[in-house]
Amino acid sequence: MLSEQMMALGKTRSVIREIFEYGNKRKQEIGADKVFDFSLGNPSVPAPESVNQAIRDILDEMDSTAIHGYTSAPGDFSVRQTIADYINKEHGTSVNADDIYMTVGAAASLIISIKAMACPGDEFITFTPYFPEYRVFVQVCGAKLVEVASREGDFQVEPESLETAITPNTKALILNSPNNPSGVVLSEETIKNICGILEKKQKEYGHEIYLITDEPYRELVYDDIKVPYLLNYYDNTLVGYSFSKSLSLPGERIGYIVVSNKMKNDRDMYAAVCGAGRALGFVCAPSLFQRVAARCIGQTSDISEYKRNRDLLYSSLTKYGFQCVRPDGAFYLFMKTPEDAGVFCEKAKKYELLLVPGDDFGCPGYVRISYCVKTEQIVNSLPAFEKLAEEYQL
Amino acid sequence: MLSEQMMALGKTRSVIREIFEYGNKRKQEIGADKVFDFSLGNPSVPAPESVNQAIRDILDEMDSTAIHGYTSAPGDFSVRQTIADYINKEHGTSVNADDIYMTVGAAASLIISIKAMACPGDEFITFTPYFPEYRVFVQVCGAKLVEVASREGDFQVEPESLETAITPNTKALILNSPNNPSGVVLSEETIKNICGILEKKQKEYGHEIYLITDEPYRELVYDDIKVPYLLNYYDNTLVGYSFSKSLSLPGERIGYIVVSNKMKNDRDMYAAVCGAGRALGFVCAPSLFQRVAARCIGQTSDISEYKRNRDLLYSSLTKYGFQCVRPDGAFYLFMKTPEDAGVFCEKAKKYELLLVPGDDFGCPGYVRISYCVKTEQIVNSLPAFEKLAEEYQL
Repeated sequence: MLSEQMMALGKTRSVIREIFEYGNKRKQEIGADKVFDFSLGNPSVPAPESVNQAIRDILDEMDSTAIHGYTSAPGDFSVRQTIADYINKEHGTSVNADDIYMTVGAAASLIISIKAMACPGDEFITFTPYFPEYRVFVQVCGAKLVEVASREGDFQVEPESLETAITPNTKALILNSPNNPSGVVLSEETIKNICGILEKKQKEYGHEIYLITDEPYRELVYDDIKVPYLLNYYDNTLVGYSFSKSLSLPGERIGYIVVSNKMKNDRDMYAAVCGAGRALGFVCAPSLFQRVAARCIGQTSDISEYKRNRDLLYSSLTKYGFQCVRPDGAFYLFMKTPEDAGVFCEKAKKYELLLVPGDDFGCPGYVRISYCVKTEQIVNSLPAFEKLAEEYQL
Repeated sequence: MLSEQMMALGKTRSVIREIFEYGNKRKQEIGADKVFDFSLGNPSVPAPESVNQAIRDILDEMDSTAIHGYTSAPGDFSVRQTIADYINKEHGTSVNADDIYMTVGAAASLIISIKAMACPGDEFITFTPYFPEYRVFVQVCGAKLVEVASREGDFQVEPESLETAITPNTKALILNSPNNPSGVVLSEETIKNICGILEKKQKEYGHEIYLITDEPYRELVYDDIKVPYLLNYYDNTLVGYSFSKSLSLPGERIGYIVVSNKMKNDRDMYAAVCGAGRALGFVCAPSLFQRVAARCIGQTSDISEYKRNRDLLYSSLTKYGFQCVRPDGAFYLFMKTPEDAGVFCEKAKKYELLLVPGDDFGCPGYVRISYCVKTEQIVNSLPAFEKLAEEYQL
């Protein structure tokens, strides 16, 4: 009598949360400092002080009914103008305020973009490894998720593998770079290859193939790595952004969609985005945090801790003999497992190491290690990783 | 190539917004004080000062990562406990924290409740007049909205009209009291009649019929009117609440669902609610405002201004000869029109009166007058209403 699909989704505790809750129990048993929990992607670095200052300033400067009242459904106009100006300055684009739709975070950006375009029978392509909710969002919009394997070794993309996956039913490609769970940033070469194939296939089939980017980790990159801005590479692009990770605000649910104004039908697409947001019950993005995001645009939390963690973890794990792809961004490290990832994670637990198997990310034989933790936790966990490597005689 | 349904939804500017934007233009032409805009339901009374104080206190007292980090998907546990305790104290119920799911406002409460239970072929009943988004939410969940006319004159419900509308496909009744757009509060007698019929039909068909309440206006009632709490009248109830109107926070998107624990399958229903929230991309309700809502629980904005407006508007309009149902709650007055409501609204515009035709609320022959405005606007508008009445020789 209820929706079986929704009930199943609600009852399937995600593997990540399962491990996290095991960790909490274990911490109570043996002490928090003895359990090395690498399961969650919750930023460990606080929001920059300017965030709380912006909140205080807004409370002081604006009327309560203006701060907390409805904004227009696509978001406050001056907030959208500020964001458009920032994007244009950073990326040399010509985005207008009316190309931007403020969202309730990255998940909302993604499902609204999918819902805006999904028709029965449509296929949405993504590369493995990918964030598990992609499958949920595509399915709930009545479409099918098609997985394409990234290249073993560096998780860049072989042009041929994308080309063979595109069919006349392909509506869009969902791209996530920096990637959760691998931390890999797609190179400009890879991006150009991808866009070239999309262009070619559009011509071949005589209809648009859209590109949906999911980029909450855009600013979390290390060593001067550049993340190509897709609006500059492909006209049929929707950029999905969130301030969750750059400003360490994941609970506040604030992000946006940019609809490329170089798209032939860009006003129709923007209308469909507005319609999808309305149909899914979003009304408007949280009004105070729309303004906070605008005031803090271009700032990030102190990501040097993530870089320190990345360096320490990557150099240590490879020294112990593990195979990892060096992550250039986000705060995840994806490590190859010497046997089935589920079995490996159980063995890791004996050393109090809590890791997430790659299976749910469409990539068995790997584990995700979230290094958005205190550096101290990484330092303390290294002997455990070393023993685990010794157990496998790496 | 895009979703026609989403594009149409995005392009259909709601009638309400259309009038609101006409009003803005008109205000620029002749001055804001000369245009009497009664179109929008945006609270005119500021949030109680305790709201901004709670925000400041939370920023001072809690760590940034705790304030702005993810909460669990159903919401912070202590927030849910505070809300459960409050409901139990107010209504003599026995709600647990685990019966509560925090939402991104009333629209989210409603669509999540519908999505949790909707199966192909399902019918959801609501009484006219009703908020137009009900139709959107029911349709996007793949079900059908069935309208049942309220009783002409007082907008209570004739038991027979509900009984004949229920079919074996009826999944739920959506109830909105105090009502938008009529301001009517369903009496305890009406509630008992409704619940009696639902009980009878459940037995007759041998399956559950759910009751979904949409009650963002619960606290906005005047003259000691009581709004029956449905958990005490019907076991298969989901309460949908929002702090938007009671705390004047509509832009912040914060509310909750209570799943009655007297429901036979209450854990399944709660799981389906969690699944629907996840599938629709809500992740968690805004984290700072979850805590603000808990700290300000039981408080309301100063609603005496709404009561003053209601009294002045109702007594004046009826004196001029208009027929209105006296609203006991919310901040809307629903007035019968002497001719087609659309034509009537156009004539009202000549007097700079901006009113919303009832057609979109499933109730032609009426207009909605939102009196969440400064009392001064009502005082100044009365001569215009009087002239309009004279034009119709009322």
